[in-house]
Amino acid sequence: MRAEIIATGTELLTGGSADTNSVFLSEELMLLGLETAFKTVVGDDEKDMEEALKRAMARVDAVIITGGLGPTEDDITRKVVAKITKKRLVLSEEALAAIRARLAGRGKDVLAANDRQALIPAGTRLLPNPAGIAPGFYIDEGGPFVAVLPGVPLEMRAMYSESLKPALDQRFGGKSFIRRRVLRTCGISESAVNQSIQDILRRSEPKVGLSVKETGVDVRIIARASSGEQAQALVDRTESAIREKLGDAVYGVDGVELEEVVGALLKQRRLKIAVAESCTAGLIGARITNIAGSSEYFERGAVVYSNLAKTEMLGVPAELIERLGAVSSEAAAAMAQGIKQAARTDLGLSVTGIAGPSGGTDKKPVGLVYTALTTPQGTTTAEYRLLGSREQIRMRASQMALDMVRRYLIG
Amino acid sequence: MRAEIIATGTELLTGGSADTNSVFLSEELMLLGLETAFKTVVGDDEKDMEEALKRAMARVDAVIITGGLGPTEDDITRKVVAKITKKRLVLSEEALAAIRARLAGRGKDVLAANDRQALIPAGTRLLPNPAGIAPGFYIDEGGPFVAVLPGVPLEMRAMYSESLKPALDQRFGGKSFIRRRVLRTCGISESAVNQSIQDILRRSEPKVGLSVKETGVDVRIIARASSGEQAQALVDRTESAIREKLGDAVYGVDGVELEEVVGALLKQRRLKIAVAESCTAGLIGARITNIAGSSEYFERGAVVYSNLAKTEMLGVPAELIERLGAVSSEAAAAMAQGIKQAARTDLGLSVTGIAGPSGGTDKKPVGLVYTALTTPQGTTTAEYRLLGSREQIRMRASQMALDMVRRYLIG
Repeated sequence: MRAEIIATGTELLTGGSADTNSVFLSEELMLLGLETAFKTVVGDDEKDMEEALKRAMARVDAVIITGGLGPTEDDITRKVVAKITKKRLVLSEEALAAIRARLAGRGKDVLAANDRQALIPAGTRLLPNPAGIAPGFYIDEGGPFVAVLPGVPLEMRAMYSESLKPALDQRFGGKSFIRRRVLRTCGISESAVNQSIQDILRRSEPKVGLSVKETGVDVRIIARASSGEQAQALVDRTESAIREKLGDAVYGVDGVELEEVVGALLKQRRLKIAVAESCTAGLIGARITNIAGSSEYFERGAVVYSNLAKTEMLGVPAELIERLGAVSSEAAAAMAQGIKQAARTDLGLSVTGIAGPSGGTDKKPVGLVYTALTTPQGTTTAEYRLLGSREQIRMRASQMALDMVRRYLIG
Repeated sequence: MRAEIIATGTELLTGGSADTNSVFLSEELMLLGLETAFKTVVGDDEKDMEEALKRAMARVDAVIITGGLGPTEDDITRKVVAKITKKRLVLSEEALAAIRARLAGRGKDVLAANDRQALIPAGTRLLPNPAGIAPGFYIDEGGPFVAVLPGVPLEMRAMYSESLKPALDQRFGGKSFIRRRVLRTCGISESAVNQSIQDILRRSEPKVGLSVKETGVDVRIIARASSGEQAQALVDRTESAIREKLGDAVYGVDGVELEEVVGALLKQRRLKIAVAESCTAGLIGARITNIAGSSEYFERGAVVYSNLAKTEMLGVPAELIERLGAVSSEAAAAMAQGIKQAARTDLGLSVTGIAGPSGGTDKKPVGLVYTALTTPQGTTTAEYRLLGSREQIRMRASQMALDMVRRYLIG
């Protein structure tokens, strides 16, 4: 069974905003065995939206529309769906009651403006909005299934999970099963991954593909079978085969981030870490503490952008910087030792490098990065030559540094 | 004149990856007077791609396809375009020479695999690839204009700017002119912006709209006229009218980030800054140093996640933290003073708060954030109650802190 997602909103066409709702939706539909064949973005224009909906209804089994349910003149989705499905717009008492309950205590003007949002094509099924005002709805009358969700991501997700998913599952579930897993890797190049798992990449089922991200190479496995168990078994077998080839380079699966993996390992070992950052200048601290509960293992960080800061905050000898440069293996080591000592933590991590675009020399080009990790067993350093823009080099440097901690903790 | 952008690639439909090329393209097309009416995403499936291309050619004046030009079996764009436009695929000697020049020195196998990429529908115009291997092409024979670009963003952008843009300009330029500006604001709510510029928002030309981002509220102006000068004058007049209402809340235009604005002001005034971060834990340092050349004004940062770090690195009295809490106006002030003194900079900036999701109390709820700025004139503090996820609260806190610096520098 195939689906089309239609995202509406002129702001998605005039640059600046990308449609992210459909990334969530296509992932969810897949779990129900619905393959997203098309995604269409269309502006707040009646004719264009009519054209998009007509096309979608002619070419797929399920159409999910997001956006255009608000209280303003621009919000025309209800009207277009009613016209194309040949239904009248009627005021839903149920929707009206829900809207008024949510707006209880506000003025009459507010209520009147929001009443529009209770207009629903006659005979359609209401989808309550657990996180906002406008309700959604769906039509399931034997022809293509058509559902309308709000454009605000939080409301769209809540409405999908609580109400639309069960309805879709009832109509489409249990026919074909798709399971998906992404293996996330770090510290191994795309061509090296390609070389290692060449024979697996060539198989037609399950489908295995690579995507290169700033965090490393992701390996995607998608399996389809006539039962969920079979599809899952296919994914599991393929995952094992890939892990056997790639070993420690795989740091996690699906949406997991390296800072989560490192955080979980630190927590489990009851170890504390402190970081000293030059070229990444806070990025590693910010990433580690993006994880709720990180105060259990993250003690402090020193953002030592100037050479004076390296000396004053971490005790890196000025003479060392003078002789070998702030971007050197020796400076990285002194920084890691310095922060571990100052913070009295189990681990001290450091990064120093040249993020560019200027500041590079023949001997020390843009992208040259050193990381160091001081542990109770001593200090290890590593050298990298990273590619990309300033932002990419900084992100990759933070990834390499976190990966150094991960490899130590699992080693 | 209207355009449709078709992004091809199964990875754009199976979750994980969003199509970002079309954000760049729709922005560029607008400058040529071409309005993007539809965006379609379709997988590497011949039938689906044929359907998408046929529909696009029937409903718009210009179709831009991205992706599917590589050397593998999955790369079917050339074939589909040839079929739908009723042309044969022929080997382009010009394309072949360019591909071979780029791959000079590699093995014969590599060459053979890449030769496929020199197959172009007969009679189409070649678009050289300044950043990669696969050339693009376009068809301009009186019917809808059809162009094909690579999917790799870097190659797509280079090919667009160097070759496709002039061809589109020749065909479509000079008829209708669109100019666009986004005014970026911080520290003012959506409803307050709405209230202030209500009459401007209601006008039909130029179109003015609001988008709420983590950085604040963006105000978008889009003007269309029969000359570029007229459209620009309309944008300029509207911008002035909006700025008059919103005043200092506007920190920049278009793609500018607050850290760029703050950096430029610091550079101009020859002032140096240092930061002390608790709940943002490095995010402000990372943002400031995302700007090339920031070492001129950014000296150091202290990521004081633990209370001990606040006392040891910044001299915040343990007794103060004990009595008033680490999340307090007084702690923020002591942190800002402490980092300014340690770094001997002109300015010291600090943030402390509760990012959540846990750790909040009735008196100090999740989202409570204090910022402080110490200048040669003294210390100012501010209190915020921010909404959103942990990540959003941290981002918003960093934005408020940077905005405090901006407002001081322009004050």
